Amino acid sequence: MPVSFIDKIAAMFPELPESRTLLAVSGGVDSMTMAHLFETADWAYGIAHCNFQLRGDASDADHDFIKARALYNGVTFHSITFDTEDEAAKRGISIQMAARDLRYPWLEAVRQEHGYDFVATAHHLNDSIETSLINQTRGTGWRGLSGISERQDHLIRPLLSFTRSELEDYLRANDIAFREDSSNAKDDYHRNRIRHHVIPVLRSINPAFERTFEKNLKIWSESTHLLEWAIAELKQRYVQKRGDQLVIDYRFIEDHRDAAPTLFFEWVSPYGFHPDQLTQALSAAGKSSGAMWYSTTHCLLADRNAFLIQPATSERTPPVSHQLEKAGGRVSLENGLLATDVFDRPAEFSFSLSEFEVELDAEKVQFPLTVRHWREGDVFCPLGLGGRHKKLQDFFSNLKLSRFEKEQIWLVLDGRGEIIWVVGHRPDDRYKVDAKSSRLLKLSFRAR
Amino acid sequence: MPVSFIDKIAAMFPELPESRTLLAVSGGVDSMTMAHLFETADWAYGIAHCNFQLRGDASDADHDFIKARALYNGVTFHSITFDTEDEAAKRGISIQMAARDLRYPWLEAVRQEHGYDFVATAHHLNDSIETSLINQTRGTGWRGLSGISERQDHLIRPLLSFTRSELEDYLRANDIAFREDSSNAKDDYHRNRIRHHVIPVLRSINPAFERTFEKNLKIWSESTHLLEWAIAELKQRYVQKRGDQLVIDYRFIEDHRDAAPTLFFEWVSPYGFHPDQLTQALSAAGKSSGAMWYSTTHCLLADRNAFLIQPATSERTPPVSHQLEKAGGRVSLENGLLATDVFDRPAEFSFSLSEFEVELDAEKVQFPLTVRHWREGDVFCPLGLGGRHKKLQDFFSNLKLSRFEKEQIWLVLDGRGEIIWVVGHRPDDRYKVDAKSSRLLKLSFRAR
Repeated sequence: MPVSFIDKIAAMFPELPESRTLLAVSGGVDSMTMAHLFETADWAYGIAHCNFQLRGDASDADHDFIKARALYNGVTFHSITFDTEDEAAKRGISIQMAARDLRYPWLEAVRQEHGYDFVATAHHLNDSIETSLINQTRGTGWRGLSGISERQDHLIRPLLSFTRSELEDYLRANDIAFREDSSNAKDDYHRNRIRHHVIPVLRSINPAFERTFEKNLKIWSESTHLLEWAIAELKQRYVQKRGDQLVIDYRFIEDHRDAAPTLFFEWVSPYGFHPDQLTQALSAAGKSSGAMWYSTTHCLLADRNAFLIQPATSERTPPVSHQLEKAGGRVSLENGLLATDVFDRPAEFSFSLSEFEVELDAEKVQFPLTVRHWREGDVFCPLGLGGRHKKLQDFFSNLKLSRFEKEQIWLVLDGRGEIIWVVGHRPDDRYKVDAKSSRLLKLSFRAR
Repeated sequence: MPVSFIDKIAAMFPELPESRTLLAVSGGVDSMTMAHLFETADWAYGIAHCNFQLRGDASDADHDFIKARALYNGVTFHSITFDTEDEAAKRGISIQMAARDLRYPWLEAVRQEHGYDFVATAHHLNDSIETSLINQTRGTGWRGLSGISERQDHLIRPLLSFTRSELEDYLRANDIAFREDSSNAKDDYHRNRIRHHVIPVLRSINPAFERTFEKNLKIWSESTHLLEWAIAELKQRYVQKRGDQLVIDYRFIEDHRDAAPTLFFEWVSPYGFHPDQLTQALSAAGKSSGAMWYSTTHCLLADRNAFLIQPATSERTPPVSHQLEKAGGRVSLENGLLATDVFDRPAEFSFSLSEFEVELDAEKVQFPLTVRHWREGDVFCPLGLGGRHKKLQDFFSNLKLSRFEKEQIWLVLDGRGEIIWVVGHRPDDRYKVDAKSSRLLKLSFRAR
């Protein structure tokens, strides 16, 4: 029997015979069996023990028991003592979580310091099945579905294909000593309910339940890799980065209707939106263009043909507004410079051809000028509409600008609060140069 | 409360107000509630009832109860009586399976005959959760994971987002009559164990278990769509059809190491191989070129750079062998024609340039000729090797032929059983035309 155990482990982890492995040993059935298997296989290993001080003297006795075993076998022994309860209280987390958070970083540190190739924990198939069922009960996408992973970086689980009862049989057959009540950080209340009350029922439906579920876990784990590939592959097709803006083409909704929420959630998850916001946004796509949602860091806009995501700024910070006291001055804006110049109309005058320069009738403009972005209710008289008033919002809509783009546009207002120039787009009709204009005000914007 | 129920259904199935739906009604809590909801919402519907005759008089009473309800509401009533036990016995399947197999085709037939848009069954969220857990217990990839689907073609499940207890509350609040013990084909033993012994434990871990699991099911169902897309997309990249042969490039194993078994199983599943064969084949890829596996219909070959799959023929049928009694004759082969011709060596003789024609020294060749494919142990003296013997297998290996290709090649043997021509590749050195040859035998193969 030991040979077949070792063969099975070696098939899963072919590197082990040539590696040095640090075994995490609690003193219980599972980890003592793991140590026995490494000893029998003659694979190089060391033993690491965490004393979580959760059971008083018994915890210290565990430590001594394992240390004695290590000395007897001539194996390096590493140990550490944690004040687990204190850590849990300090961080407001469960004892189990605190123990886990203390344990893994220490094991990895010992591995690095002492040049081990791997850290091995004694998790077995039943642990993994229980983890999957706990995750399902608490809610999980597919990532939590496949239980405990066989390897993650330098962390391996050599016993993961054995059931609890197989390991117990091995332990009995080989007369392996262990500590009955050894500190087992993973034995929490929910896990015990699954182990003692759910699994036996499932085993009554399928006597080979563990083996069957092992196959499930394997398929689900492979599916996770395929899903991650699919999400990344489709991201390349539908999601573009433009500066600090993310553009998500609505066509993914049509093309992948049955998976659209998952795709959207996965692509957008780094930006901290609430799932309900994303559900709302998805159903607004293509309907209520211009709707916006905010996370603490980002803003999501349902634009005409795409979702736009960019760092949240304008709505969260007070509206930017700059003053320019008198003609001839210049004002520094967040993304450029606005300069003014006043001069007599030359005999041979022609208008600038740049959309970022404009000449107005200086005598019509009252200082100081204000430079700011648009606000709800802004109105002006676009040049060429015969002096008719138009809502800036409608003006922008005709230009098919996204809300983000609108928010980037500078407006120049004169001392009366009238918009005299929508920078880059249109001057106001009331301030235009006409036959009688003799002094001109030239405004020019230069982007930085 | 009824309004919110109806709204929720209408949100999931926006077509219902404009459709005619055939409701499958057993008389139990779920289906009577469904009928009440359709009645209250004023959506056009008819009622269909299957009498499975599983509970004697009570089954007939169910029928009468539902018929009376239909008449009272002025709703069309369809019914049928099945001998379910007989059907189950005849087909050697469970009563539950027999009932299901009888029920759905009949419902669909009624739908088509009477012009309903949909068939609706009263499955609810708990049914779906139970189905997922049963599937997991019996073993499932991802397809069985997401429980019962909301819609499949014309079949819909309007109650799928309600829990059993929500529906019971609705029933009580609206004083809906139902048959306590109505025949419920889905109440099998395993389902009851999950319902009464597993779910309550999971609900003790998470009081909102059903709502949580509903989200799981939704995510898993979306994942299934993504996975199917990924498998099809990657198939386009790695799998090619060449005639009746499927060629699966080994590069998928390197490129998608963590998902290779799933991809391979999915691509190859139509060909009936056993999962163990596929596991073996995967680990043979690139190592033991030439290994083969057979399903009842197909043959899978681990070739040099790809798996090849083709209809199983040669190994299953007796080896083909054709006789050609005398020079000048021709023989019809499965895929072409082999012709012979004997003539005096002309003064100006030059060898044919086609690889499917060869001239030999007629006096060296003994009739009858045999035409067959290669066998283990075949040996010949390839022209140009100075008369040295070479195993045909090694000769083929040098040509980098796949085993399938080797099996397609015709050999011509003379009366002594010596290979005189490997058709399309090389004549035998011993039969070549030399300075002394005066009569020539020309062999030619023409493919059909």
